[in-house]
Amino acid sequence: MGDTRIVTAAVLIIGNEILSGRTRDVNLAYLATGLTQLGIRLREARVIADVEAEIIKAVNECRARYDYVFTTGGIGPTHDDITAECVAKAFGLPLIRNPEAVARLERHYEPGMLNEARLRMANTPEGATLIDNPVSTAPGFQIGNLFVLAGVPSIMQAMFDGLKGRLAGGAPVLSHTISAFLGEGVIAKDLGELQQRYMDLDIGSYPFHRQGKYGASFVLRGTERSRIDGAAAELRTLIAGLGGQPIEGEPAER
Amino acid sequence: MGDTRIVTAAVLIIGNEILSGRTRDVNLAYLATGLTQLGIRLREARVIADVEAEIIKAVNECRARYDYVFTTGGIGPTHDDITAECVAKAFGLPLIRNPEAVARLERHYEPGMLNEARLRMANTPEGATLIDNPVSTAPGFQIGNLFVLAGVPSIMQAMFDGLKGRLAGGAPVLSHTISAFLGEGVIAKDLGELQQRYMDLDIGSYPFHRQGKYGASFVLRGTERSRIDGAAAELRTLIAGLGGQPIEGEPAER
Repeated sequence: MGDTRIVTAAVLIIGNEILSGRTRDVNLAYLATGLTQLGIRLREARVIADVEAEIIKAVNECRARYDYVFTTGGIGPTHDDITAECVAKAFGLPLIRNPEAVARLERHYEPGMLNEARLRMANTPEGATLIDNPVSTAPGFQIGNLFVLAGVPSIMQAMFDGLKGRLAGGAPVLSHTISAFLGEGVIAKDLGELQQRYMDLDIGSYPFHRQGKYGASFVLRGTERSRIDGAAAELRTLIAGLGGQPIEGEPAER
Repeated sequence: MGDTRIVTAAVLIIGNEILSGRTRDVNLAYLATGLTQLGIRLREARVIADVEAEIIKAVNECRARYDYVFTTGGIGPTHDDITAECVAKAFGLPLIRNPEAVARLERHYEPGMLNEARLRMANTPEGATLIDNPVSTAPGFQIGNLFVLAGVPSIMQAMFDGLKGRLAGGAPVLSHTISAFLGEGVIAKDLGELQQRYMDLDIGSYPFHRQGKYGASFVLRGTERSRIDGAAAELRTLIAGLGGQPIEGEPAER
């Protein structure tokens, strides 16, 4: 049977720059893909402003509700970087200057360059475990089930890749995609009935316009390969019965 | 003085495919930019699953809290498209087959092609106002302060562009960006003090690596041009005092 535990997660993207449209977030897609590969279900993501009350509220709602929570952004040296202090308040813990984080910064900066602003990047809630930053040293941290990561994508990615060993995934989500140059509306009724017969699967329908034609990709997700294979076989028959040609995976763009 | 009212908004991105990493969302950035241009502050965005209870909860939390709420996704003809019925439940309104929406679909489809699945795309809460879809006809809708848009980016964009006339913006957010090839940590203290002197502005610091060097862009946002100009002048002096060269806007990538 394998692992059947469902492990869940949420992502909090912290930063005014995403909400103003100045910066296009790319971290969510990276985390979504990475968590799925680990057998962790990303259930929710929120983009929130650099506002203390908002960050505290989102952290506390999500850490109570999901197995893991990941934040991105707000851990640099400037006044608008307030994630660490907000997380400490959310957990009701003192914010301390983490000695190991200070030691890492001392090794990184030239003598005289480690000023108070940069030392702020060593602040963590008491009891936090550091998350390595192989790109620019200033670490993230873990406290309880919350992982605090950088907002700069190259740093965020390196931090996440390095901490995967701390995460206990559940039953891996398997998926199979079948596409067809059929309108969604043509197959919708049969597809809904297929979903009813396979309630343990999540069947999604995603329309596209490729090779100058409309069609849709149908994604079958679940934890048991045999069930996915069974639904896929039925889906191929459905598509053919509607005069379509089932395509394994996604058709080429052109 | 002009308009000083603060108008707020939230965006709800509905779809399992974003949370699984299958699809990379591009709608948030479009809405964030468009709302900012209209003088509407996007305060929060959430990515949520195709799960009725989640959608109802997010709709009700956000419509009570913000002036406008925009949803994307879940209004197609397949079983996983449940946004309209969830919105009706959130508002406590009956879900009806909207006659004007039916008329549009009847004009769009060839005789015999408008089946029951496609007619589901004409379902709206009672009292909703349609949102035009110039790309593929099936409309979005507005109910109260909530705007229900498609998930396919080309359709979502056309819908949003067409409904802008219904939105009352507030005081426009003006911004000015000044950059420098200085480490954020070098200027952080002075920047924090500048923020203290300009509490009516939102000063953000965003690090970059360009032309082979590290630096940061400093974004000054507010509603009064004279205050932004004043802060910008002080910021240029700060940067020069630290041995940097103030750059208007963002420096070239290379």
